[in-house]
Formats: sequence, C-alpha cells, structure tokens
Amino acid sequence: MTLQDSHISLAHGNGGRFMRELIDEVFARHLASDTLDTTADAVRLSLPGEEIRFTTDGFTVQPLEFPGGSIGSLAVHGTTNDLAVAGADPLYLSLNAFIEEGFDVAQLERIVADLGRAASEIGVSVAAGDTKVLPRGQGGGIYLATTGIGVLRHPTPLGMKQIRDGDAILVSGPLGDHGISVMLAREQFGLRGDIISDASSVLGITCAMREVPGIRFMRDPTRGGLVSVAHEIARATGLTVALDEPAIPVRPAVRTVCDMLGYDPYYLACEGRVVAVVDPGSAQDALSAMRRQSGGELAEVIGCVRQQSGEACVSLKTEVGGLRFLQELEDDPLPRIC
Amino acid sequence: MTLQDSHISLAHGNGGRFMRELIDEVFARHLASDTLDTTADAVRLSLPGEEIRFTTDGFTVQPLEFPGGSIGSLAVHGTTNDLAVAGADPLYLSLNAFIEEGFDVAQLERIVADLGRAASEIGVSVAAGDTKVLPRGQGGGIYLATTGIGVLRHPTPLGMKQIRDGDAILVSGPLGDHGISVMLAREQFGLRGDIISDASSVLGITCAMREVPGIRFMRDPTRGGLVSVAHEIARATGLTVALDEPAIPVRPAVRTVCDMLGYDPYYLACEGRVVAVVDPGSAQDALSAMRRQSGGELAEVIGCVRQQSGEACVSLKTEVGGLRFLQELEDDPLPRIC
Repeated sequence: MTLQDSHISLAHGNGGRFMRELIDEVFARHLASDTLDTTADAVRLSLPGEEIRFTTDGFTVQPLEFPGGSIGSLAVHGTTNDLAVAGADPLYLSLNAFIEEGFDVAQLERIVADLGRAASEIGVSVAAGDTKVLPRGQGGGIYLATTGIGVLRHPTPLGMKQIRDGDAILVSGPLGDHGISVMLAREQFGLRGDIISDASSVLGITCAMREVPGIRFMRDPTRGGLVSVAHEIARATGLTVALDEPAIPVRPAVRTVCDMLGYDPYYLACEGRVVAVVDPGSAQDALSAMRRQSGGELAEVIGCVRQQSGEACVSLKTEVGGLRFLQELEDDPLPRIC
Repeated sequence: MTLQDSHISLAHGNGGRFMRELIDEVFARHLASDTLDTTADAVRLSLPGEEIRFTTDGFTVQPLEFPGGSIGSLAVHGTTNDLAVAGADPLYLSLNAFIEEGFDVAQLERIVADLGRAASEIGVSVAAGDTKVLPRGQGGGIYLATTGIGVLRHPTPLGMKQIRDGDAILVSGPLGDHGISVMLAREQFGLRGDIISDASSVLGITCAMREVPGIRFMRDPTRGGLVSVAHEIARATGLTVALDEPAIPVRPAVRTVCDMLGYDPYYLACEGRVVAVVDPGSAQDALSAMRRQSGGELAEVIGCVRQQSGEACVSLKTEVGGLRFLQELEDDPLPRIC
C-alpha cells in the first residue's frame, strides 16, 4: 500500500495532490493498460471496424466483499456479462468510483485489485476513470459504475425479436447463489453458510454459444432473477414463458435458506449465469456446449416459450404437477445485492 | 409526471415492475433516441471509422439545482466538455443514476429533463443507462455518472506533449462563476448573489479552435480550477507556468465573495471554460476565435509556459508586480462542487 493515509478524506476528491495520489497509487497501479492515461481528458480507443456494443451498470452491493467476489470484480463481471449476452467480446471499460470519506484505504486497495484481476482475466481494459469522494454518512462505503464497449462476434442475430413459439429456455447453472451468498454475508442475518456467489464472467459460455445454430436470445438474470427475465420475454413477444420447476437447478443449501426465510430462488439475483432461448432443434447442442464450459456444468433446459390463449404470462409447473403463476417482482426480496 | 409514486422507494431499484416504470416513465421519456433501447443488455453504436475518444465523470454537486444548471445538465456538460477539449465531437453517453430512497420524483423529473435538454442541444445521445436506489441516508439525494464516446475532429495533434517553451495560455472566460454560484446556493452560507454558474458546453469554443493553427492543448478547469491545470502542465512538461494576474478574467462579484470568505478564484471549479495552450504566433487568432463564440466573449491571454532554472512551478505575477507561487491544491476549498 503506497498511499500515505489510511483513510479517505474529502481532500482525496478535490482535484489536487491528494486526489492525484489516490488515482495514481491505488487505481492506476492496479488498472494499468496501454489505453489508460490518467493525465488525458479523453483516451484514444482502437476499435475494429465492426459492430460495436455499449452498456453500463452501477454497483451498490453490501457487504462490499462476500464469498466469491467483491464490488470490484462484480463491477467488471456485471457490465462485461451484459456485453457477452449481447454476443459481444468486451474491449474497454470506464470506471466511476464514489468513495465515502473515512473509507479504509486497505479495503479500497483490495477492491481495486480484485477489479483489476477480473478485468485482466477477461482481457478488458479499464480505459477511463473518475473518482468522487462523498462526505461521511452520504455513501455506503463505495459505489461503482462501469460502462463497457465491446465488438459483436455472435454470427447470427440475437434479441427478443428472434424468439419464436416453441423455443426452449436454458439456464447455464444453479440460481440464487449470488443473492443468498451476499445475504448470508450480511451480519444482521446471523447466518453463515458455505454458499459461494456465482459472480463470474459468462464469456466462456456465450462464446461457446456462437458454435450453436438456433440461439435466439441470451440474458444474465441479475436484479429480479429468472422471473424478471421471463417477464421481459413475455412482454416483448406476447408469448407465455412456461417453466418446469423440477428442471430448474437450485443448490440444496440455497433452497434450504430460501425455505427458512421465505424467499423464492427464481427472483434472486445471479451474477454469473446465462438464460438462453434456443430453437428447440438446437436445445441439446446448446446444453452440451454450456456443460463443457467452466461454470456451465449444471446447465439445464428449464422450459419453453409458447403461444397460449389469454394474456402472456410466466407459469411454473411445480414438482407435484400443479401450475403456479409467477408475478412480476414488486416488493424487494433482497436489496443492495448488486 | 407519470410515475404513480411521488417519492422513490427501494422497490424502484429491485429489477421489477417499479424499476421498469421509473426507467420508462422518467428516464426513457426524456432521453429517447434512436440508439437508446431500455430492453437491450447492450445497444448498437454506429461509429464512423475514425479516431474514437472515451471519457467518464461522476457528479455529486450539492445543491442538486443551482443558478444556471443542475446535476443533470452538469452530467452532460462535464463529460462532453472532456471530449470537446480533447478535440472530439461527442456522439454517445451512458448514464448511471444512484438515487436515494425517498427522493422527490418531481425533482428527479426536472433533473432528467434538464439532462435530456443539455444532451439534445449538443447533439449527443444517451445510449445506455442504469439506475440504482440507495437506502435512505446513504446517498446525497442523487449521484450521476456519465461516460462519453466521441470522434476526433481536431485537425492537428493535441496534448500536453505538444506544449513548447514560450507558448501562450488563454482562458475562454471568467473563472470561478460555477464554484461561487454553487456555494451561494448552499443555504448554510446565508448569502445570496446574482452569480450564475458558467456550466455549459464548450463545444462551440473547441470547434472554433480547429480553424486556428498552433493549438497545442486544451483543458476545462473543473475540480481544482486553473491552478490544477497549470500544475498538470508543469509536471508533464517540466516548464514553468507563468500567469499574469491582471489579465485573468474574474467577475467583480466573484472576487468580492472570494475576498470575503478567503477563497482564491484560481482554484475554483469552472464547468464551461477552456484553458488553451497555443503557439505564441497563433495566440491572437485563438483569442479572436474564442471571443466570437457564445461564452467566449471575455476570453483573455493569461500567461505563458517557459523554461526556467530550478523546479517547474506555477507563478502568478500580481497586480502590484509581485510574484506569488501557487501551490498545488491540498485542502478542499469547496467540496461537492461538481
């Protein structure tokens, strides 16, 4: 640790020497790349002459470090996963940090280092950044925002418009690990578990999907979980999303915590899963391709999209053969999860 | 106002119906463009096959609305001005909003509308966005971050590396209007004034500079003001920045408030000014070009860059002919100014 001070002060946000030292010695040191230039107003991007994809996400997770990740790695995975499910390879990120006065510099270093590692692993450069310091009591320690630029690599059109009656729905792994792991890491619950967040890059899985014809649409089920993605599909297509509960992968430990506390795992945030909608003839190929990827070993076909009379909805065929309608999320099961 | 609720709740941040309504009815309504697609994970950018520039900035100004602007217009001007001084035309922005639970929806609408107007006036599209809701007490009402993409249009290389011994320094207008206007808008000072923030786009001025040969470098003096820009130049070039106090434009009202409260206007943030370093032979052309632009009428040549024995520094020749050395900012004269 090279910053002289052990805690962040308002002077670290004022545009002067302390801010420069914070940027050079904490941020730029962990995030160095050919593109990043802390003295420039705007940096030069080298973009291939192809289709560009653009996305942004904000991060307010509490606690800031949890089993399987931190707000730093999450800020990389959240935004690059949005590019990945859009069929793009992530190239560049911008990073905004809103840091609360009094924040522990050692923890800041760990978070920024975690962010830098996650970016390196994916091969994405943090090309631009900004820090602001918030007065004590006006921030939850640190908030991050990242904006990502990627280049489209998926060979066929992707999007909700591509979805057809009869398409199969897959998920690349168990649901709810991130939501429950973050919740258990909050001291106020007085629970401890071995559940590790699924927070990770889905780029391996989305790249593998490029070899599978018949992929219509991919999305990572973050805030609002699987059910929110399903409702988006129903709204956009007018088709009902029919999910098959026994097929949906949920770890026993996650299900136990959900049962104890009254949560529904289908609404919980994941940060390293892909929901894919696939031509039914390609469903088995897509499933095999997912299962060959790290993090995709427990992928499953979990339902289908179909034309039904009446309003499009999200239905769940339960273990015992009943039919449950999953409403769009209204109240908040777990705030500050991403 | 079309959102049913009058105040923001945590449910507006949870990924469900309330969040969708907030995004559709407050954000997308004011920020609609061909590029923005609130249902997409990542949007398609159409970029000319030219040199791209990329930058980001965070905004935490208090109060959120002040004479001459708001955090919304500031979030557009701050980031697009960074592209402008880098010689680029802004094309796209991403927007992150961190909104505190309980925030007044009517004020949110005004801020987003102000942001949308500022973007339209410059011709930049808000192409991607994200909102997070912070628990009550963990945010200063609203924080924004914007990331900008632009295309380089300046015909000659710009950058601190281009600066040469003997170059002239210009500023496009009076210093400190933004800092003092925001400070006076804070109730705790018990002062009221007619000082209007200079917050505005500098694109007119930076475009005009494209016609002037001999422009080396431009920067907008925001946090840390003119002195911070001068120190950056001195550090990067090893040359001393010699400023001429009588030439530096500062409005009498700003100077009066500074004298009363012990501030130095050369450290105060501007949000609509350009500091330009110019070949001395082009200084008069640059000055005339600035003065023809709206917001540049009071531009001045304020000093020069020169080789001196000893360490490079920032010096100010005072009104009475004395020499003052301006140190790099350490303590914070006015926090939460941008």
